[in-house]
Amino acid sequence: MSPSRLTDLDIWKRLALCAEKLSGPEMHLKHLTRSPERFKEFSIHAVDMVYDFSRQRVDREAVDLLLELAWERRAVPRFEEMRAGAIVNVTEKRAALHTATRDFGDTPLKAGKVNVTAEMKRVRDEMRQFAGAVTAGEISGSTGRPFSHVVVVGIGGSYLGTEFVASALAAYADRGIRLHFLANVDIHNFGRIAAAIDPETTLWIIVSKSFTTAETMANAGQAAAFMKSRGLDPARHFVSVTSQGSPGDQPGQASPFPVLRSFHMFDFIGGRYSVTSAVGGVPLSLYLGYDRFEAFLKGAHEMDVHAATAPPHANMPLMAALIGIWNNNFLGYPAQAVIPYAEPLARLAPHVQQLYMESNGKSVTQEGEPLDIRSGVIVFGEPGTNAQHSFFQLAHQGAPFPIDFIGVVNPQYTAYQALSKGVTNHQELWSNLISQPRALAEGRESEDGHKAFSGNRPSSTILLEDLSPASVGRLLAFYEARTVYEAFIWGINPFDQYGVELGKKLASEIRSQMASKNKNPDHTFETVDSISRFYLEKLMG
Amino acid sequence: MSPSRLTDLDIWKRLALCAEKLSGPEMHLKHLTRSPERFKEFSIHAVDMVYDFSRQRVDREAVDLLLELAWERRAVPRFEEMRAGAIVNVTEKRAALHTATRDFGDTPLKAGKVNVTAEMKRVRDEMRQFAGAVTAGEISGSTGRPFSHVVVVGIGGSYLGTEFVASALAAYADRGIRLHFLANVDIHNFGRIAAAIDPETTLWIIVSKSFTTAETMANAGQAAAFMKSRGLDPARHFVSVTSQGSPGDQPGQASPFPVLRSFHMFDFIGGRYSVTSAVGGVPLSLYLGYDRFEAFLKGAHEMDVHAATAPPHANMPLMAALIGIWNNNFLGYPAQAVIPYAEPLARLAPHVQQLYMESNGKSVTQEGEPLDIRSGVIVFGEPGTNAQHSFFQLAHQGAPFPIDFIGVVNPQYTAYQALSKGVTNHQELWSNLISQPRALAEGRESEDGHKAFSGNRPSSTILLEDLSPASVGRLLAFYEARTVYEAFIWGINPFDQYGVELGKKLASEIRSQMASKNKNPDHTFETVDSISRFYLEKLMG
Repeated sequence: MSPSRLTDLDIWKRLALCAEKLSGPEMHLKHLTRSPERFKEFSIHAVDMVYDFSRQRVDREAVDLLLELAWERRAVPRFEEMRAGAIVNVTEKRAALHTATRDFGDTPLKAGKVNVTAEMKRVRDEMRQFAGAVTAGEISGSTGRPFSHVVVVGIGGSYLGTEFVASALAAYADRGIRLHFLANVDIHNFGRIAAAIDPETTLWIIVSKSFTTAETMANAGQAAAFMKSRGLDPARHFVSVTSQGSPGDQPGQASPFPVLRSFHMFDFIGGRYSVTSAVGGVPLSLYLGYDRFEAFLKGAHEMDVHAATAPPHANMPLMAALIGIWNNNFLGYPAQAVIPYAEPLARLAPHVQQLYMESNGKSVTQEGEPLDIRSGVIVFGEPGTNAQHSFFQLAHQGAPFPIDFIGVVNPQYTAYQALSKGVTNHQELWSNLISQPRALAEGRESEDGHKAFSGNRPSSTILLEDLSPASVGRLLAFYEARTVYEAFIWGINPFDQYGVELGKKLASEIRSQMASKNKNPDHTFETVDSISRFYLEKLMG
Repeated sequence: MSPSRLTDLDIWKRLALCAEKLSGPEMHLKHLTRSPERFKEFSIHAVDMVYDFSRQRVDREAVDLLLELAWERRAVPRFEEMRAGAIVNVTEKRAALHTATRDFGDTPLKAGKVNVTAEMKRVRDEMRQFAGAVTAGEISGSTGRPFSHVVVVGIGGSYLGTEFVASALAAYADRGIRLHFLANVDIHNFGRIAAAIDPETTLWIIVSKSFTTAETMANAGQAAAFMKSRGLDPARHFVSVTSQGSPGDQPGQASPFPVLRSFHMFDFIGGRYSVTSAVGGVPLSLYLGYDRFEAFLKGAHEMDVHAATAPPHANMPLMAALIGIWNNNFLGYPAQAVIPYAEPLARLAPHVQQLYMESNGKSVTQEGEPLDIRSGVIVFGEPGTNAQHSFFQLAHQGAPFPIDFIGVVNPQYTAYQALSKGVTNHQELWSNLISQPRALAEGRESEDGHKAFSGNRPSSTILLEDLSPASVGRLLAFYEARTVYEAFIWGINPFDQYGVELGKKLASEIRSQMASKNKNPDHTFETVDSISRFYLEKLMG
C-alpha cells in the first residue's frame, strides 16, 4: 500500500477528469440509458443475485478507470490476505476473520495461537447442540418449563446484525420462540420487554466481547434482579456470548452473572461483522433452528468466495465499492440510501448504517495520516414503497443522493393473491421497484417548475431470487465485502472504531458525578462544565 | 414575499460573511462553549421544554442576523397567516390548517365554504363517541366479539405520524387493543399482519384522502378478501378516514369497500401534518382512549401558540429553523440527525424524515422559480445510546453532520431501579446524553491520528419533562413548526409534493403491462425500455 495521498495518484486525477466529462449535459442518464446494450454492459449476474448499475452515472471509461484504481490499490489481493488471516486491522494488531465463521472447509487457518478452523467448528457444534437441546426441551428454565422467549442483551454489533437477519427470516421462525432485543440502556426498553415476556420461560443471551460494555452490563443487571424478584435463578436462564476468559465466560468461574452456558467470540471478528459468529448464531439457531442458520452461513460464504475470486469487472461487491467511491469522491454525493422493496429487509438499512458508517467513517489512513478525501458517507433508508410516500420528494426534486434499490423475485408468502387494478400486491410492489430508478434517472421536463424533474439521479438495483436463509446470507456478505473493499481502496482501517472512545470517557466522568450524588445527596456538580451542570441538576436536583 | 433570489439579499450576504468568521479556528466550539454564560445565552425554556443550541456554531452576531433574516422573510406573520386560513399552499390553492385540528377555542375559522372550527369539533366528537362505544363493546365485530386488534391501512402521511405517536405512548395503551400498521403494498406486510390478528376481533381503518392511493386500495382489497374468506362481513369490520364524498365516504354509498363508519379528513390538512386530525385520531383514540388523544392535541396546540406568539429570539421552532438554515446554507452540512435518548421516540426520526424531507426537499420557490440555494437536507436517526454503538464513529471522526439530541427527564417506567456502576439505567442513559454533545463540540487533540477528535461538530439538545401525551404533542408540533418556518424563510411551499408524481406515472404504465400479461400469457414487453424489460421478464417470465 503506497502511503502517497490519494489525490496525488495519476489514476485519481484521471478519474477526476472523467467525472468532469460525465457531468456534461450530453452525459445525462436519460441519454446514457437509451443504449439497448446499457443493462447488459452495466450489470453483474452471479451467485443467484443481480447487481444492476446501469443507472449509475458511469460510462465504459469510468468503469475501466475505477477497475484500474482497484488494481493499483491491491483491493482483491488485500481481500484475499484478509481471508487468509493477515493482520489487516493494523491499529489493533488483529486479523479480521469474519469470513472464517462461515467457511465449512478444513483448510487450516491460524490467528496467533488460535486454530481458527477448529474453533469455528467447535463453536458451531456447540450452538447446534445447544439449540437442539433447547428446542427438544432437554434444557429448560429453572421451573422446568421449556423456553419460549429469548432476549438478546447486546448493543451495536452485538445487536443490529442479528436483528436484521431475524426480521428478514421471521417467516421461518417455527421453534416456538419469541425473540426480543434489549440493546438500549434506556429503562423504557427493559420495561417494555419485562412486560412482554414470561420470566419462567425466558432465556437471556448476554452478548459482550469483554463483558464490560456499560449498557449491556446495566441491562444484564436489571435482568438478573428481575429474575430473582420472580423467584427464579438467573444462572439457569442466562447464557453468554463472550471472549474466552472474560468475566462472563463460564460456567464455573467467578462472574457478575453466572450462566448456564458460554459461547466464544474472538478478537479477530469485529462486532459489526459478527452476525455469522456465535453473536448471531446462538439467538438465530434458537429462533430459526440451527440448520437454517447454517444455510444462512453457506449463503454468506458463497458471497465471500465470489468477492475473493470473481474477475474484478464481474465482482459485485467490488463494483459496488467502486461505484460508492465514484459517487462520493468524484460526483460529491454525501449520502447513500438503501431501499429494500421487501418488508422483511426493513432492518437492513440500520445494519448497513452501522456496518458502513462505523467501518468507513474515518479521517485518517490506516497509518494515521490525515485523509485527503472524504471516506464514509451517511447511510440511511426505509423500505419501498413506504419511502416513496415519505422522503422520495427530496430524492426526486431536492438535493440528490444515490440509492441502492433491492428487489426480491419470489416473496416468502404465496397466499393472498387478490388483484387490485389487475395486479397482485407483489406485482404492484415491483411496478414501483421498476419505475423509481427510471424516474430518478430520466427525469421529465416541464414548463412548470413545480412539475419539472431534473433527473440524472443515480441508483443501483440489487436483485435476490428469494428471501431464503442463503439469500439473506449472500446479501449480508455483499454489504460486508463492499464496505471492506471501499476501505481497502481508500487505505483506511475498516475494523477499528476509535471514534467512540471520547464520548465513553466523558460519560464515565458524568456517571461518577451521578454515582457520588446517589451516595451523598449533598454532592454538588460544581466541577462540571456549565452546560453539563444544567443537565445534571435537571435530572438529579 | 419578495421574489428576489435569496443569495442577492443583503442579509444573506452578511450571514455568509458571518459564517466565514465563525469558520476560523478561534471560533471552534471548544472555545465558544467555555463561556459560563454560553448555555444561558443560547437556550430557550418554554412550554415545559428546553431548546439548547449552545453547541451550535453560532455567536450573538450570527443569531441576530438569523433573526433579521426571519424578520425580512416575514416568517412569523406568515405562520400566523397560515393559522388564520390563508392559502399558503399556493400551488394547490389550499390553506394549511393542521393547527386547527388541535385548537379547542371557538374563534370562527373558514376554509372556502367549510366552517373549520365546527368541522374540527364535529370530527373530534365523532371520534370520542366511536372510541367510547368500541371500548365499551357497544360496537363490535360481525360475530359480536369485541375488537382487540386495530389495523391502520394507510401509507406515508396516513401512517408515519400515527406510528410515531402510538409507539411513543405505548406505555399508556390500556384499552385491550393491539395496533398494527399495514402501510407497504409488499405482501410480506399483509402476510405478517394476517398471521398476527384474530380476524373476528379485528377492525381495519382505511386511511386515504382520495380513496385511490394504489398501495392502500390494494391492501384494503386483500383485507376484504381475507375477511370474506373467514366468513366475516368486511362492512362490519372496516371504517374509513377519508374526504367527504370520496369513494370511501359512507355508509350508504356505492364504494369499493363498504364501511361501518366514516371519519372526514380535509384538503386543507396535508398528509404529513395530519396526525392530529382523524388520520391519527381514530386509531389513537381506540388505542389510548380519546382523553389521552385530546391531551396530546392540547400539547400540540400549546406549541402552536408558542410558535406563533413567542418573541422571535425566544421562539423554539423558529430558532431551530434558523439553525437548520445556518447549518445547511451557510456551514454546508448536507444532513441532520435526530437522536432521541428515549426508546419510545424510536419512530420520531422516520416521521420527521417524511415531514421534513417531503415538505422541504424542493428545488423551486413557491412561485416556481429555481432556488439558488439547497433547501431540505437528509434527515435520519436512531435512538441513543444505540446510535453511539452504530454510526457515531462517523459523527465523531468522519464527515460531520448536525444532530438534535432529545432527552426526557422523567421516564414512563419508575420500576427497575437496580444500580450498575452506581447509577440507574436512566442515569446511565443521561450520562451519555450529556456527554455526546460535549465530545462532538470540544473534540480532543492527540499525537496519534487514530485517537484525535477534531471536534467543532454542532448539535442541539431538546429536553422534555416526560413522555406524557401532552409532551409528545408539543414535540410533534415543534418539528412541524420548525419545518414550516424553514420553508417560509426560503420561500418554498412545504405543503405540496409534486416530486412523487413522475414515479407514480411510470409505475402505472408498468402496472398496465403486468395486468396485460396476467390476462394474456402471450403478452410481451417489447414496448418497454430495455432495462425495465429485464425486470418485467424476470418477474413474470
